[in-house]
Amino acid sequence: MSKSKVLVVGGTGYIGKRIVKASLAQGHPTYVLMRPEIGFDIEKIQMLLSFKEKGAHLVEGSFSDHQSLLDAVKQVDVVICTMAGVQFRSHNILLQLKLVDAIKEAGNIKRFLPSEFGMDPSRVTHSLETGKETFGDKMIIRKAIEDAGIPYTYISANCFGGYFVGNLSQLDGSLMPPRDRVRIYGDGNQKVVFMDEDDVATYTVKSVDDPRMLNKTLYLRPPENILTHSQLVEIWEKLTNKTFQKVHISPQDFLASMIGMDYGVQAAHARMYHIFYDGCTMNFDIGDAGGEASELYPEVPYTRIDEYLQRYL
Amino acid sequence: MSKSKVLVVGGTGYIGKRIVKASLAQGHPTYVLMRPEIGFDIEKIQMLLSFKEKGAHLVEGSFSDHQSLLDAVKQVDVVICTMAGVQFRSHNILLQLKLVDAIKEAGNIKRFLPSEFGMDPSRVTHSLETGKETFGDKMIIRKAIEDAGIPYTYISANCFGGYFVGNLSQLDGSLMPPRDRVRIYGDGNQKVVFMDEDDVATYTVKSVDDPRMLNKTLYLRPPENILTHSQLVEIWEKLTNKTFQKVHISPQDFLASMIGMDYGVQAAHARMYHIFYDGCTMNFDIGDAGGEASELYPEVPYTRIDEYLQRYL
Repeated sequence: MSKSKVLVVGGTGYIGKRIVKASLAQGHPTYVLMRPEIGFDIEKIQMLLSFKEKGAHLVEGSFSDHQSLLDAVKQVDVVICTMAGVQFRSHNILLQLKLVDAIKEAGNIKRFLPSEFGMDPSRVTHSLETGKETFGDKMIIRKAIEDAGIPYTYISANCFGGYFVGNLSQLDGSLMPPRDRVRIYGDGNQKVVFMDEDDVATYTVKSVDDPRMLNKTLYLRPPENILTHSQLVEIWEKLTNKTFQKVHISPQDFLASMIGMDYGVQAAHARMYHIFYDGCTMNFDIGDAGGEASELYPEVPYTRIDEYLQRYL
Repeated sequence: MSKSKVLVVGGTGYIGKRIVKASLAQGHPTYVLMRPEIGFDIEKIQMLLSFKEKGAHLVEGSFSDHQSLLDAVKQVDVVICTMAGVQFRSHNILLQLKLVDAIKEAGNIKRFLPSEFGMDPSRVTHSLETGKETFGDKMIIRKAIEDAGIPYTYISANCFGGYFVGNLSQLDGSLMPPRDRVRIYGDGNQKVVFMDEDDVATYTVKSVDDPRMLNKTLYLRPPENILTHSQLVEIWEKLTNKTFQKVHISPQDFLASMIGMDYGVQAAHARMYHIFYDGCTMNFDIGDAGGEASELYPEVPYTRIDEYLQRYL
């Protein structure tokens, strides 16, 4: 079977650029939407040109020009969208409704992967108020896709290493490891899935032509990357040969500390609460709604968390 | 002679990141200042980590903490600074006074390369009012360096390809080539130096241990990259096998078009005026104050402009 043509929307972003690379690496004819709104952002333009040099096709198109989206979508078989959905960066999830419209009208798309890549929004039923719109908006997009009868795969990628592993999931304004003191959420024993971002991209692209993932959710839960917060800290202690002072934060104190914070920061804290106190990346069984990535694609040599942390030594 | 230890300040920026790579490639022990102000800018943090993976040392230091700058500077022999000096991005040239203070106090620096990388500010004597502070501020930094007796090299890199070559130096809000119509500045016959940014970095690093460049200015003028605006357009016409409609803009019309523009955009236009109407990258002889890069380092296989433009095909 020949590999599907893949269009990446958001191909210069944090996950998008990795998906472009993974798509090229896995031999898909790869198309990247180039939005005129890019303007003078020379780093992004040169990133697009570097993709082009590696064989990607740059396709012009704008979210404020339906015809251009339609033309772009008609050139490919698969669309992967990676709009940001976090409040401290940008939150554009609903913009995808325009893409859904174009895909519906075009009628040729064999698989659409909307921007998810976090925890599964259909499983987060008791979300804190702040930041809740991420899950709500993703569910609105899911409904639009399913109502339109568009074949889909949802990607539940859980915790990106750059935000959760390098800084041992601290919320002290840094993405680098703490020096000597570390905050542990609750008893530190909830299971959490941590992922290398390149592996997220590799698994995502693996799924696009996989009939087992048609209208399903791909859950990224490679067994060796399921760790408690305490275990994450221990790995770093072992690597640095240092013992950290550990301050356990009760759920009440954590929630109280959020009061008065900026909205975006508060939303980030709420996410942490769901992950480290509710254990929302692991507190359900996958069941029939999907499959687990490392089981489906055992050939992917995913990055273990001790390897990931070695970059920060 | 062993290679000097090089500290790059601004190592995640447009030119800075290329200088880090060039320094590593040329075998210099390479240090990159990591400013705590980087906060949650994950792209920059991961860029720093990738430099680290290639052998660079990350050194923490802040412009609001003199001691930290002093400690950073004391670890190396050479400091290269690449703060932005363009108004539409950011303009921090004078922040370097703090670096000059640290270098002066440290007393161990064998060569300092302040942020220049454009046209030689000492040669731009009749600058338009808008954007003039770039040249003025760079001259203030030069005076501080020379008053402090710090050994220096200034880099006059002229026109970066990403801003001037890819879009054929058009000012239409895009960094991609125009479609069918091109504005030509004046008669289109002023000579202009266009540079590949990686070559700028390579030449810059070449100069740091070169006694010929002690207290001199390195001018980047590789002969095959000295082109008129008309010649630049012709190369693109040849590559695309297309003839463009050419609209010549008189200097009067160009200046009149600037009235009422945003300051940053106006400053960019003023820069273009000096380059394409005054010919300020080539309207003087280098003389004893410096040397020309491709003559000094003929072993560097610099990128020709037709090769540069092929990336945009």
